[in-house]
Amino acid sequence: MTDDALRPGEVAVPLPAAPDAGVYFIGRIHTPWARRGDCPRAGDAVGGPDCTIVIDPRWLPALTGLDGQADLQVLYWMHQSRRDLAVQAPRHSARVLGTFALRSPVRPNPIASSVVALLAIDGNQLHVRGLDCIDGTPLIDVKPHRRASAP
Amino acid sequence: MTDDALRPGEVAVPLPAAPDAGVYFIGRIHTPWARRGDCPRAGDAVGGPDCTIVIDPRWLPALTGLDGQADLQVLYWMHQSRRDLAVQAPRHSARVLGTFALRSPVRPNPIASSVVALLAIDGNQLHVRGLDCIDGTPLIDVKPHRRASAP
Repeated sequence: MTDDALRPGEVAVPLPAAPDAGVYFIGRIHTPWARRGDCPRAGDAVGGPDCTIVIDPRWLPALTGLDGQADLQVLYWMHQSRRDLAVQAPRHSARVLGTFALRSPVRPNPIASSVVALLAIDGNQLHVRGLDCIDGTPLIDVKPHRRASAP
Repeated sequence: MTDDALRPGEVAVPLPAAPDAGVYFIGRIHTPWARRGDCPRAGDAVGGPDCTIVIDPRWLPALTGLDGQADLQVLYWMHQSRRDLAVQAPRHSARVLGTFALRSPVRPNPIASSVVALLAIDGNQLHVRGLDCIDGTPLIDVKPHRRASAP
């Protein structure tokens, strides 16, 4: 978040001096939305436009066998979000809420989880539907959606 | 993973020299299972024994308003897992599979997502049901489960 101003009732806390673990970006997500304000609030809705997940060539072998999956769980890193808010005053809410009571991108670890429909795999590109993040968002994981993949 | 031996067909890749982002551990998960081999393979099943999520005091205000939620999505860091396998030979599978075609804890970013039933909140402790990780697992996020919390 580039705007550091707190809304009334919001609480920021000091972040730890150092992280406890490191995340590798394993690819990038390409969507039609260039800015956060452009993104839909669709959530896990398996609808909307086709988007493309581009996997880093390093991890290409990790796609082996993925083509049989209808639905994927995608984890991504919301790199534009501030991380120090413990209490937030969302625009859609009449009251302030704790960060862990919200699915806001503003959180200590800005990790989003979405369920997407896998349309096609083309080399290191996954064509999917159901994402709502900005173009260029770093990817951190892809795995079969549990409910859809269970026997 | 303390065992560095690859099974037949498994492929390890060199990890990047440095991580791209840092994760803060925001608490710990306490379960009855001391070792990975003891853990059930239950997945998102909202069953099993009660477990406790202890939130770091720094983030206590972030629980504000969480008590109204029936189901939570919990993200945690599988700190004992190796991160360099791109292709794996799971014991339950007749063939090798790419890491992204599996929900194995062995993956570049060892982040697990579970849906749990929230039983009670007692200060900075969340009593929940539905986890299957080892005792002491680092917590990285708690948020309302989207489907359960939608109107």
